[in-house]
Amino acid sequence: MILTFWQAAAVVVSALAFIVAYRFYRWVFALPQENARITSVGGLIKNGADTFMRREYSVLAKFVLVAGLFILMFLPAPVWKSGVYPNVIMAVSFAFGALFSAIAGKIGIKIATVANMKAAEAAVKGIAPAFLAGFRGGAVMGMAVVGTSLLGVTAVLTLTGDTSAVLGFSFGASSLALFAKAGGGIFTKTADISADLVGKVELGIPEDDPRNPAVIADNVGDNVGDVAGMGADLFDSNVASMSAALVMATALDAGTGEKINTAAVFCYSALGLLASVIGVLCAKMGKKKNPTFALNSGTYTTTFLFALLTAVATHFFGFEWRLWGASAVGLGVGLIIGLATDYFTDDRRSPVRRVAKASASGPAFTIMSGLSYGFISVLPALIGIGVSALVSYKLCEPLGEGYAMFGISMAAVGMLSIVGIIVSNDAYGPIVDNARGLAEMGGLGDEVISVTDELDSAGNTVKAITKGFAIGAAGLTVISLLGAFISEVNTAAAELGVMGITGFDITDPVVFFGMLVGAAIPPVFSAMLMLGVDKNAQRMVAEIHRQFREIVGLKEGRAGVMPEYGKCIDIATSGALRELIPAGLMAIFSTLAVGFIGGVAAIGGFLTGNIVSGLVFAMFMSNSGGLWDNSKKYIESGAEGGRGSQAHKSAVVGDTVGDPFKDTAGPSINTQITVVSLVASLVSTLFLTFSVF
Amino acid sequence: MILTFWQAAAVVVSALAFIVAYRFYRWVFALPQENARITSVGGLIKNGADTFMRREYSVLAKFVLVAGLFILMFLPAPVWKSGVYPNVIMAVSFAFGALFSAIAGKIGIKIATVANMKAAEAAVKGIAPAFLAGFRGGAVMGMAVVGTSLLGVTAVLTLTGDTSAVLGFSFGASSLALFAKAGGGIFTKTADISADLVGKVELGIPEDDPRNPAVIADNVGDNVGDVAGMGADLFDSNVASMSAALVMATALDAGTGEKINTAAVFCYSALGLLASVIGVLCAKMGKKKNPTFALNSGTYTTTFLFALLTAVATHFFGFEWRLWGASAVGLGVGLIIGLATDYFTDDRRSPVRRVAKASASGPAFTIMSGLSYGFISVLPALIGIGVSALVSYKLCEPLGEGYAMFGISMAAVGMLSIVGIIVSNDAYGPIVDNARGLAEMGGLGDEVISVTDELDSAGNTVKAITKGFAIGAAGLTVISLLGAFISEVNTAAAELGVMGITGFDITDPVVFFGMLVGAAIPPVFSAMLMLGVDKNAQRMVAEIHRQFREIVGLKEGRAGVMPEYGKCIDIATSGALRELIPAGLMAIFSTLAVGFIGGVAAIGGFLTGNIVSGLVFAMFMSNSGGLWDNSKKYIESGAEGGRGSQAHKSAVVGDTVGDPFKDTAGPSINTQITVVSLVASLVSTLFLTFSVF
Repeated sequence: MILTFWQAAAVVVSALAFIVAYRFYRWVFALPQENARITSVGGLIKNGADTFMRREYSVLAKFVLVAGLFILMFLPAPVWKSGVYPNVIMAVSFAFGALFSAIAGKIGIKIATVANMKAAEAAVKGIAPAFLAGFRGGAVMGMAVVGTSLLGVTAVLTLTGDTSAVLGFSFGASSLALFAKAGGGIFTKTADISADLVGKVELGIPEDDPRNPAVIADNVGDNVGDVAGMGADLFDSNVASMSAALVMATALDAGTGEKINTAAVFCYSALGLLASVIGVLCAKMGKKKNPTFALNSGTYTTTFLFALLTAVATHFFGFEWRLWGASAVGLGVGLIIGLATDYFTDDRRSPVRRVAKASASGPAFTIMSGLSYGFISVLPALIGIGVSALVSYKLCEPLGEGYAMFGISMAAVGMLSIVGIIVSNDAYGPIVDNARGLAEMGGLGDEVISVTDELDSAGNTVKAITKGFAIGAAGLTVISLLGAFISEVNTAAAELGVMGITGFDITDPVVFFGMLVGAAIPPVFSAMLMLGVDKNAQRMVAEIHRQFREIVGLKEGRAGVMPEYGKCIDIATSGALRELIPAGLMAIFSTLAVGFIGGVAAIGGFLTGNIVSGLVFAMFMSNSGGLWDNSKKYIESGAEGGRGSQAHKSAVVGDTVGDPFKDTAGPSINTQITVVSLVASLVSTLFLTFSVF
Repeated sequence: MILTFWQAAAVVVSALAFIVAYRFYRWVFALPQENARITSVGGLIKNGADTFMRREYSVLAKFVLVAGLFILMFLPAPVWKSGVYPNVIMAVSFAFGALFSAIAGKIGIKIATVANMKAAEAAVKGIAPAFLAGFRGGAVMGMAVVGTSLLGVTAVLTLTGDTSAVLGFSFGASSLALFAKAGGGIFTKTADISADLVGKVELGIPEDDPRNPAVIADNVGDNVGDVAGMGADLFDSNVASMSAALVMATALDAGTGEKINTAAVFCYSALGLLASVIGVLCAKMGKKKNPTFALNSGTYTTTFLFALLTAVATHFFGFEWRLWGASAVGLGVGLIIGLATDYFTDDRRSPVRRVAKASASGPAFTIMSGLSYGFISVLPALIGIGVSALVSYKLCEPLGEGYAMFGISMAAVGMLSIVGIIVSNDAYGPIVDNARGLAEMGGLGDEVISVTDELDSAGNTVKAITKGFAIGAAGLTVISLLGAFISEVNTAAAELGVMGITGFDITDPVVFFGMLVGAAIPPVFSAMLMLGVDKNAQRMVAEIHRQFREIVGLKEGRAGVMPEYGKCIDIATSGALRELIPAGLMAIFSTLAVGFIGGVAAIGGFLTGNIVSGLVFAMFMSNSGGLWDNSKKYIESGAEGGRGSQAHKSAVVGDTVGDPFKDTAGPSINTQITVVSLVASLVSTLFLTFSVF
């Protein structure tokens, strides 16, 4: 009864999110667009992004097909044992997970490649209308991501009644996210690095100069990497956290009439989305016309509303208060991690300033000090995740057996409750970043550019918080996926009539072996992506050199001479698709290899090692990257000798290294961890049946 | 009976090692030394090294005093509970551990700062005599380190009959190693980076140019960092692996008359040293006059002899063949890890060549690709350590309860059996590196310099293998220390009448919390050391600039004008001592904090997280650093445009970043992990008695 109510509520709130998204979408489209140059350049960006998405999705469709056939044959159990029906359910859920994620990404790209033009033109009228164009464009993505994920999970569970199918749905979303994030990340940084290297460093022409053949690819990259990639990432985390919670809640509710724990998961997720919708509607710049304030006020409103609404619901529907406490702990710690991240990347704080100062001694010092602060930034995040897992576990332990791990999953649900506003803020970033480029290429003048600069800078500041948040959320989610894995193994073990597991003992060498291998995966995965960017950027640099050499008048900026933007987009696209597959498959196959060698015990260790080392690498790479970016900007604002100084040259080197750190490898690690956790859960029956040790 | 025999044998073999060391020492000292300039510069290096060691040891003496008083009060249990006697034993053992390590370091420095001059002069006569001078100088250190450690452990166990005292001795050695390695590492890289930055980069004068005020400090650094630091590190690993094995062997032997497992530990350690002694005596360059061949042949001879001798002993003394198998697995895997390390840092292999190629696009690409290959290099090492732990565990499991973990410790003993030859090879490196500098400063001419260059290059090649080996050995040792920790906790728990532990369950959130915090320590520790180098190098660069500005005629190289070498040595010394303390204390105090918060369960997780993340960071930092170093040298040999090209400039940046990676932070992490493991074992009783959770 309560469950039905909250499942219905989830559908209603999802619909509400879609309505808000649709209205914003119409609103953004209706904004005036008169500047022909902006329309033309914006059109190039839009076409480039569409081409990339089409080619990426066609590669991914093949992957989904192959993986779907594999699932049909083997999961949840080999088809000759379990019969056709459960495998079809699983395969279809998987395909839907991938499809829903793709739809959300598609919507995001569609609006982002329009909102950027609208925001650029709106900037002529002042900061307030430009901010609104950017923010509402981002909000379309935010609402679409969270609405789709909530609706999808609710639909799959309601229609199949099977939490394994929900895990299958989640795996579909994760697979897509892994490739979207990694592929988009490689695309965006290939273009960004090549454009900067030839444009800014070799030729000394400004960023976003239309003569640069890679400039459109760079702008396309912001969309496919940051909008579509980040959206897929948080779609994935959101779905995964709900799935893990639902797996455990269903196990706890088994045999009870009320299904109250399952209802609580839907309730909290739905109210989180509702709070995000209200937060998005409330975000205003206020009298100070400060865009950072507007973005943060939306986040804080959502946080407050979520805590309030869930407290009221807990009171009226008789959920356990301890679960509410766990979700509040998760949310609070998410914010704290975000703020810690902010400390390490904010140019008013000492890390950024010290790196800027060290840069005066040469690029080696930029790298050394930036890496060092990135290393240190790992500590608060890991302590935060550890403490929130510990507190939410202990808080819910008195509720009975199985509730302790469920408490951790509720902390993850709590942390991710505000994901709607987080994605909105995050998608705002690349929209206004693009708007800045369009304002420059459209010749709107310095005053307008400075308006878009301010919007862009707010996007960067908020991004630090949302990135830390995304990693923290992934951390808690994968810990609860570990709980889901155990729950799945025990269900399968009971069916097979073999012994289940109660935990994983570190001193068991099979567990330890798995842990060591699992810990090595994130660095290897990161390296494969970075080498992919490196190789791809070298190809693109060669192409840019060719164009400047062969196209007469391009370098001098002769009127009517245009570079061949499309060639650079092509290189970025095909390179990204070529480089992303091996890294993704490496992660999936190493999970399978460890599982078939060491069985579930090795997988328990593997997941743990993977989570721990993954969090360390994700955090340090994202933060070092953000810190170098801001150090460079800080120097460009006039500090340490300003542009052209030795410090600036060194800072550009730092920023170039930091780009794939913060936009390719770092944020892809989240997804890598989630995919591996889901693969482990889904294949658990097979590991139980066949393994060497 | 068997035990007494092998304890006596250990003493005899230690004495034999001392005799060989003494004879080599006399031999090296008796070599001719006629060049006045070399004697003068060599004297400066010697004085600088002595000054540093004296000041370092006086700081460390204070630390040992404070820590010793703490031990006297609280360990193994608070003095008001356990009585004075065990605490005095523990405190004295701790002090002896530190003292023995200091003595071995002192001997190493004494011979190294003489052998460098002798090797330089011997190079005039050809490569064979110069090699012998360098190698025998290094062998003095190797024999001293292993002789002292074996003698120390044997003496402590024989005199006290208490394995806790052995852990105390080991903790003394580790504490000293932590500070010696970190302090020496900061010193050497401060000097190296500053000398290169001003000399090679700014002024374009050659390496080891006597005009450079930091050149003597740089040479001193090679000695205090690589000779004394590395010696202390392997002293520490060797003692720790024996201690862990002895703790478990004693527990297994409790109640039996024969003490056969304890005897086996002494037997294997003694035969390892014996094999090393023979290996050192056999190392010859052969007809090809190839120094790399000579160094490697010594290692392979030792390995083969160890396997043979222990097999014979196992047969005659009736030790378990499975233990022999475990030690052989450890030794084999140690070599494999060393060879994998070599792959990533050898300039005939693709990683080094690709990084050299990428360098042509600018320093950012050097950094990105070098970091990436460093990340990838983690995988074979972690798999190797995981497999050797797994195989040795499973191999010894059938012997009975407790033997499985003992098998892992025997693998560590096996891996470390050849430590004598490893230290010899390692100490050879800085001696011939210094000899090269002395040949240049002494004006011995290009032909002699090219001889010393060849010797130096062999040292670098072999170093890659020994470094990978050292990390692998530390990995297995700390896994067996985890076993020792459990053993200690259970002994203490039995005395206190509380429940002991059987293992650590990952799904226990207290364990997981500890694991997350433990995983964050190695990156934070590395960052603190690197920032220390960074700060210190900035101070020294300022001093070098001052000297070139103020000392008239220095830059032009006017005859009779000398820089103030002492000032640079002073800066490196005081800076190193100032920067090393916080990092060391951070590691120790965070262990105590986690233990008092979460008790033994949290510490189990903490150690595991620390080991896993520590191995990842140690491996990636050492290998990236080695790879950058060799890329630079590869380019300097004429590839990718050679000296002065863009590739070379970029490679210099990579090398500068790599220096603190490979010589300060990377190799110090080993010691950090060991210290933390030992602190945990020693304080286990306190954690059992007081903890929040």
